[in-house]
Amino acid sequence: MDIAQLLLALIAIFVAAKLFGELAERVGQPAVLGELIGGVLVGVSGLHIVDPHDVTIHLLSELGVILLLFLIGLETDLKKLMNVGGSATAVAIVGVVLPLAGGFALGQLLDFPVIVSIFLGAALTATSVGITARVLSDLGHLQDDESQVILGAAVVDDIIGLVLLTLVGTLAAGGALTFLGVGKIVLVAFGFVLLAIVLGSRLAPMLIRAIDGIEMNRGLFFAAIVFAFLLAWLAQKAGSAIIIGSFAAGLVLARTHRGKEIEREVHDVAQFFIPIFFVVVGAAVDLRSINPFDAEARQFLWIGLALTAVGIVGKVAAGFVVWKKGLNRTVIGVGMIPRGEVGLIFATIGLSSKLLSPGLYSAVALMVMLTTFLAPPLLRRLLVPRTPNDPPSDLTSEYVVEAPMDRK
Amino acid sequence: MDIAQLLLALIAIFVAAKLFGELAERVGQPAVLGELIGGVLVGVSGLHIVDPHDVTIHLLSELGVILLLFLIGLETDLKKLMNVGGSATAVAIVGVVLPLAGGFALGQLLDFPVIVSIFLGAALTATSVGITARVLSDLGHLQDDESQVILGAAVVDDIIGLVLLTLVGTLAAGGALTFLGVGKIVLVAFGFVLLAIVLGSRLAPMLIRAIDGIEMNRGLFFAAIVFAFLLAWLAQKAGSAIIIGSFAAGLVLARTHRGKEIEREVHDVAQFFIPIFFVVVGAAVDLRSINPFDAEARQFLWIGLALTAVGIVGKVAAGFVVWKKGLNRTVIGVGMIPRGEVGLIFATIGLSSKLLSPGLYSAVALMVMLTTFLAPPLLRRLLVPRTPNDPPSDLTSEYVVEAPMDRK
Repeated sequence: MDIAQLLLALIAIFVAAKLFGELAERVGQPAVLGELIGGVLVGVSGLHIVDPHDVTIHLLSELGVILLLFLIGLETDLKKLMNVGGSATAVAIVGVVLPLAGGFALGQLLDFPVIVSIFLGAALTATSVGITARVLSDLGHLQDDESQVILGAAVVDDIIGLVLLTLVGTLAAGGALTFLGVGKIVLVAFGFVLLAIVLGSRLAPMLIRAIDGIEMNRGLFFAAIVFAFLLAWLAQKAGSAIIIGSFAAGLVLARTHRGKEIEREVHDVAQFFIPIFFVVVGAAVDLRSINPFDAEARQFLWIGLALTAVGIVGKVAAGFVVWKKGLNRTVIGVGMIPRGEVGLIFATIGLSSKLLSPGLYSAVALMVMLTTFLAPPLLRRLLVPRTPNDPPSDLTSEYVVEAPMDRK
Repeated sequence: MDIAQLLLALIAIFVAAKLFGELAERVGQPAVLGELIGGVLVGVSGLHIVDPHDVTIHLLSELGVILLLFLIGLETDLKKLMNVGGSATAVAIVGVVLPLAGGFALGQLLDFPVIVSIFLGAALTATSVGITARVLSDLGHLQDDESQVILGAAVVDDIIGLVLLTLVGTLAAGGALTFLGVGKIVLVAFGFVLLAIVLGSRLAPMLIRAIDGIEMNRGLFFAAIVFAFLLAWLAQKAGSAIIIGSFAAGLVLARTHRGKEIEREVHDVAQFFIPIFFVVVGAAVDLRSINPFDAEARQFLWIGLALTAVGIVGKVAAGFVVWKKGLNRTVIGVGMIPRGEVGLIFATIGLSSKLLSPGLYSAVALMVMLTTFLAPPLLRRLLVPRTPNDPPSDLTSEYVVEAPMDRK
């Protein structure tokens, strides 16, 4: 890829995102649904301008989801998140176990080998926190208690998904699982989050004080970005999820005395990268795999639909394990529906290790697609859009800067 | 490159840029000098964390210089630029002819073949507008008349450099030059700028009115970015320089009634990308090529120093052709000193077509390096730093948002 191709891809991404995002809002849907559809139109099933498999485009979209989770973290109150910690963990665990068991059962029913059935089940487990967080934010509901449960559960889910990915990857490579090995992977993945929040909560105020002392040009902005990227990098290295790292960075920076300022300063840059992520998710959709007029595709279309049904039922049911009074359990369950990156990573590993046939790969991809595209309009039906009164709690809207920013 | 490597590279870039940029300012130098030095330390001559030849890093740095020139264009008054048009053109032409002749003469003196001598001369011609504009902006002198002459001349220079590049490339490939062929290349390269400004001045207000009419979320921001990327892309396709395209986009958007607002909205995103460009320029510096203790390197070290001297004398002399009264001709000449991308592109083409030996390539690279690193401290000696009173005329400083931004 050269710079001319990159510019063209970015132009297509921004035009598609803004045009279809705006259209979606005009018909009462969350903007993110429009961005996904815009992505389909400029991607592999449409104009082919945005190639989701190009390394630079892919990396830019990853920066987008890292910054999205950083911003969500900055807008999340750690205490509120802790308050619903029990419910979130319960939702996460049930939301992993049910789809895993359902997917496995479906695979066995269709006479696939055990390892293939495990693969299908595992691909159904991880919630894509990015999509749901963006929808909740688009609708101005990010601060609801239900949203806190969803966020918390999705984070736990994402970690469980990665643990499963490591385990299934070992199985796929012909390796054996030991109790000690599994324990270590689980410990590291969850330990990172705890450590990041506990240590981060102590280090972040020191970092901010140091920046205050130096009075560097745009020091706060770059310190925050570097902190987020560093935690994302550490998370990756520790075997946790990269977006969990930036989310944790946002959580701890939000608690410092300059949290609101950081949120404002990071906002514009995040806005540049976030649409890249959603358009690229849409651009990766290959409509040929669900062509009902193609006999072979039709077979896997049915399997994909069955996987989707199992995935949706499992996650929605998980929402109903919440015991706390006054919470809308349907919203929580529906919020957990979208699969995403992790589901696709499962499918890709399965394909490259020859466990999944190209047809089964398409079936899993269809499930990821459908759950991703269904969640925004479903959530929209369940939630009344709200104008945010605490700017910039809505990630997509402009806001007035009320206080003068720090200047040198 | 994977996302973990990219995050690490970005962390190194931002830390190096802010740390050394700040240190440079503390010792009274422009921040950009520190960013370049920081780049050397994390690049191929130092920690090897930032690989300037990686395609994604390279593309991100190109986005940096595209956004830098867009911002400079937004801060430039087209009328003021036109007022000094005659002087700028004269400076540009003399600033191309003298180094070209000097480099050719040096090559002949050292008994190189004619085509090699032409190559050496051509590599000395193009001014790196990015470095100088950033220094002038760091020092708060971007609105001076001298700066307008430098900007105008550097733009013309960059186009002449690209024309020369096409011609020399044809010669290097063993092709012949026809008068008609040369005329066409020149016409297209310069015609693009005129057309972009004339047509752009008519289209930009329509674009802004359309955006105002739709009242899209962050519509102005994305419209401006898409406009800049589109003109940069068109410039590349038309055979002009990519940064000339974004500069022209800035010039015409600045004249619309929402020019100042666009400047504010684009500012934060540009700040994210601009340091990437300067750190990557520094990261590409290979100090081994100027190792005075290596006998072979020493020989080309001398040639590199001779090229540097020819390059500096030629550009400084060009500053003195300005006939307008009251302008500091030395500032103009010194402002034209930094070579950059185009000089390196020349050297790379020469190397890959076997016209330049690796030693001569290093000599040209040394000239690019020295002129780039010398200009900031020289300009600093000639200009008294000034606090900008028209925010955000200084690209690196924070500013207070005085008027509420447009909101949906």
